[in-house]
Amino acid sequence: MPKISEKGHKMPSSPIRKLVPYAEQAVKDGKKVYYLNIGQPDIKTPQVALDAIKNTTLDILAYSRSEGSENYRKKIAKYYSKNDISVKHDDIIVTTGGSEALLFAFGSIMDKGDEIIIPEPFYANYNGFSTASGVNVVPVISKIEDNFALPSIEDFEKLITSKTKAILICNPGNPTGYLYSKEEIKKLATIVKKHDLFLIADEVYREFVYDGINHYSILQENGLENHAIVIDSVSKRYSMCGARIGYLVSKNKELIQTALKYAQARLSPPTLAQIASEAALDTPNSYFTEVINEYVGRRDTLISELKKINGVKVAKPNGAFYCIAELPVKNSDKFAQWLLEQFSFENETVMVAPAAGFYSSPNVGLNQIRIAYVLKEESLIKAVKIIGEALKVYKD
Amino acid sequence: MPKISEKGHKMPSSPIRKLVPYAEQAVKDGKKVYYLNIGQPDIKTPQVALDAIKNTTLDILAYSRSEGSENYRKKIAKYYSKNDISVKHDDIIVTTGGSEALLFAFGSIMDKGDEIIIPEPFYANYNGFSTASGVNVVPVISKIEDNFALPSIEDFEKLITSKTKAILICNPGNPTGYLYSKEEIKKLATIVKKHDLFLIADEVYREFVYDGINHYSILQENGLENHAIVIDSVSKRYSMCGARIGYLVSKNKELIQTALKYAQARLSPPTLAQIASEAALDTPNSYFTEVINEYVGRRDTLISELKKINGVKVAKPNGAFYCIAELPVKNSDKFAQWLLEQFSFENETVMVAPAAGFYSSPNVGLNQIRIAYVLKEESLIKAVKIIGEALKVYKD
Repeated sequence: MPKISEKGHKMPSSPIRKLVPYAEQAVKDGKKVYYLNIGQPDIKTPQVALDAIKNTTLDILAYSRSEGSENYRKKIAKYYSKNDISVKHDDIIVTTGGSEALLFAFGSIMDKGDEIIIPEPFYANYNGFSTASGVNVVPVISKIEDNFALPSIEDFEKLITSKTKAILICNPGNPTGYLYSKEEIKKLATIVKKHDLFLIADEVYREFVYDGINHYSILQENGLENHAIVIDSVSKRYSMCGARIGYLVSKNKELIQTALKYAQARLSPPTLAQIASEAALDTPNSYFTEVINEYVGRRDTLISELKKINGVKVAKPNGAFYCIAELPVKNSDKFAQWLLEQFSFENETVMVAPAAGFYSSPNVGLNQIRIAYVLKEESLIKAVKIIGEALKVYKD
Repeated sequence: MPKISEKGHKMPSSPIRKLVPYAEQAVKDGKKVYYLNIGQPDIKTPQVALDAIKNTTLDILAYSRSEGSENYRKKIAKYYSKNDISVKHDDIIVTTGGSEALLFAFGSIMDKGDEIIIPEPFYANYNGFSTASGVNVVPVISKIEDNFALPSIEDFEKLITSKTKAILICNPGNPTGYLYSKEEIKKLATIVKKHDLFLIADEVYREFVYDGINHYSILQENGLENHAIVIDSVSKRYSMCGARIGYLVSKNKELIQTALKYAQARLSPPTLAQIASEAALDTPNSYFTEVINEYVGRRDTLISELKKINGVKVAKPNGAFYCIAELPVKNSDKFAQWLLEQFSFENETVMVAPAAGFYSSPNVGLNQIRIAYVLKEESLIKAVKIIGEALKVYKD
């Protein structure tokens, strides 16, 4: 029998999806499951995007340009301009989700054995894209005690070697919800300029910032033009996760030219989803106001409910729609599985994502979980109640 | 300034797209251009697929399952069964186009420096996917004199080393239009079993076979269960190139489990396009009968018109919608550019794909072009007339 590749063996399984069979069984057993494990919002897609699909008059579903249609990219550039980010349409490549933008970026700047520094905990699929690209993740630990703020310059510099090609951040962060300040971005700018590295920022949650704090994009930082690569996506912004439309944005022309070769090899991003995504740019501001209000309410409820539970520690997030909670358990992986398999409260239970999968350092975050506040407040209250009741009886 | 990767530098540009700027200029200069360079059919997408999109009642465009919805995969398995190919839904992973299926297959079976043998000329993007995956293409030359039939077993075996992991064929072939016979597939089966290799078959043109000859899939060959990986796509079958829906199909469970990890890292294939593609499976047979008749007419016209030109040699294709023609020129790359830039006949000209980009051996196919017969017969007649007139005056 022919053999699977070494890389294939190394590919990580998704920490968010590995408990799915247990959840399916729980449902079969008649339990109601609150899904707090996955970043699939329950928010409606803007009507203007859905209408664009219904009203399309295409009779041949043809390829688009590999880099996305010029018209769409011009509209995206206008969107950035409204967000005080000055980019041109030819600084943008439309990709099949933020995922593909990351793969193009990794392929364009790193070879096998190269290193990328990522503050952890981080979005688990960065591990998958790194393995697929043959590059090594070097984690720099951020701590729940510091609300997951940026580690110090010294912490980064200790890890920089001749193999280091880039630093990758997610801002605001999945899974931490942490929003980097302008000062923190400037610190990162100093490091990448000094060591001639790329700075990749996954800014797909740009709109999801709370408490009157502004998001500061790496594209707003002067002098970073050749270093900055932004990963973006319509998935969360317009609750269009299934569209699979993202962008890679950079003012580094050589990078864009290289990424374009990857884009041409796979021909084009999905055409129907581009139509919906282009229309989504006309979503009225009132949509975002409502959505942000909804998330702030959910976050506040979630955090205050979690704090009521003895022994639970939680960092207050200023962005995105996730938080990391530390539980009084030894192994949250086992706890999460036990919740689904063996526990119920009033015939309901909860699915959460064990946080260990968001760390690449071994044995870190074992007592943490990630909660996505993608359900309505009343459901969040019930879900946290269930976690509280579970912790009363759970034995490690 | 931070540096682009070695891999990024090596990524090939698309031979089909590199003349696009010249074509755009020709149009600006007021010339009409017949586009024979790209496999974008002018055939309408089945109404049933377009209707499914218009009638969708989704209000949240959510992620689908990473491997594609179970319902869709069950319907795909039925499609295969109608084509005398026996696979189950869990032998199938739905991908973002055939392109992604190839990337998953390459990542699952090959590491950096591994080798894949491909009969050339071959679909140019195989080069891009190989470079992106860090693997080396080892070409085995098939010849226009033999109609691009399968090279001999000896030709393959001469190239097999300890690094060889797979043989890749496209059947029927892009760019050759050659349809491998059952006997040729059996020859390949013998080689891959003897040397314990994977056999990847890109069968996206399965339906496009002419002259009463049947397509024989590698999935129909007994004993190949652990070796066979089929790459498939809705792009050409239903004229839905822009959907970006393909499949990876294999009965090798370990391969499917590995490819699934790649699929999970990128979350899901596009949701809207899956709705259209699932509906497309209900396309009436009459659609295919009409389409096949149309292509047979085009092929016959194209071949007979090309043969009228002095010094032109052409292999008669039994499948797909491409043919390779040998021209009485030294360098078809220059000729193709000259056609766009400097030549016109009755204010019209033609864009063709120089064939050198379909070979990975250097200096082979320099006098060949690939013609995609994706235009109506009357346009093909005019386009070939233009090529004939051009050859009368062209000086190498």
